[in-house]
Amino acid sequence: MKLHESPSPNARRVQVFMAEKGIDCERVPVDIRAGENLTPEYLAKNPGGRVPVLELDDGTFIAESVAICRYLEALHPEPNLFGSDPLEIATIEMWQRRAELNFMSEVAGAFRNITGFFKDRETCVKEWGEVCAEKAPKALNMFDARLAENQYLAGDKFSNADITLGIAIDFARMVKVVEVPDLPNLSRWHAEVSARPSFSAE
Amino acid sequence: MKLHESPSPNARRVQVFMAEKGIDCERVPVDIRAGENLTPEYLAKNPGGRVPVLELDDGTFIAESVAICRYLEALHPEPNLFGSDPLEIATIEMWQRRAELNFMSEVAGAFRNITGFFKDRETCVKEWGEVCAEKAPKALNMFDARLAENQYLAGDKFSNADITLGIAIDFARMVKVVEVPDLPNLSRWHAEVSARPSFSAE
Repeated sequence: MKLHESPSPNARRVQVFMAEKGIDCERVPVDIRAGENLTPEYLAKNPGGRVPVLELDDGTFIAESVAICRYLEALHPEPNLFGSDPLEIATIEMWQRRAELNFMSEVAGAFRNITGFFKDRETCVKEWGEVCAEKAPKALNMFDARLAENQYLAGDKFSNADITLGIAIDFARMVKVVEVPDLPNLSRWHAEVSARPSFSAE
Repeated sequence: MKLHESPSPNARRVQVFMAEKGIDCERVPVDIRAGENLTPEYLAKNPGGRVPVLELDDGTFIAESVAICRYLEALHPEPNLFGSDPLEIATIEMWQRRAELNFMSEVAGAFRNITGFFKDRETCVKEWGEVCAEKAPKALNMFDARLAENQYLAGDKFSNADITLGIAIDFARMVKVVEVPDLPNLSRWHAEVSARPSFSAE
């Protein structure tokens, strides 16, 4: 098993997930800045052109970070990170999607359109980036309210939803295009998840 | 169990999913055009303000269409729509995410920013809508290539990935802001999924 990856929030989701599971594998760096992910060789692995991609020993490729995590969860069920009964499964998926759709994708939209990081390969609309940068911090209020009454996003248990939101916040801070307000419950939770060894995994 | 819904692609995902499972429940209409989803009463059900929301008999609310579908799959495992072994689970999630992130979200971005459908509650950037409208049809080539060699997106089995792509294509055709090219394998597949009774469910 090999993980084709580059420094990116989606690659980090898989790194943290694997560290939580105590799994490791060979890593193959992909230079997305130089467009290595858009070469015919790479597109044969993942026609979507994104990182990361997990290559299995039989030559099968699994793209999309959450799909890779679900594969690993099915092979290594413990510690459970996607839920184990119907309501827990749904609750984790709900908060993972909220973290991804209401915050992480707004941060990505702000980053790509404001900085023009991929302007050699996509049309950037700065005004749209600014709309995203304004929406992203507001979305954090929903998570702060949830974390006022729960230790983790899905309740008492650390889950994949926490990985998504934690990494998205770290990414927002790193690229500096989105203000991350200092909300009390979110900050308490962020300190807790950041202290997990998995959040320092590479 | 009650489904709070309005005419929208995400509500339709749950309707089709339930029809595939042979499940039904009470429906509660939500008038999103009038902003009913932004009232304090609705936000107490779903702080994200989106539809659909599934209300359980004990008063628990599950938001996010895919989270609702995962809840229903866990309660009613057959017919299986999210996969049953590690590779199948990953393959369905990969294609479901590609359908959602590479096509459905571009169609939504084009629709909202070009038509200004929600301009009373969000900032629209027409230029961004046009970027989305240009990207969405190109993304369909990846699905067409996949469907040249597979009956369904995840292989031999109809899955949740097919529901997402089928509904996103129907939505694109309905709102007319994105051109849906006539690609041979995609058209063959779309005719097949559209003929399923679930695709006519309401």
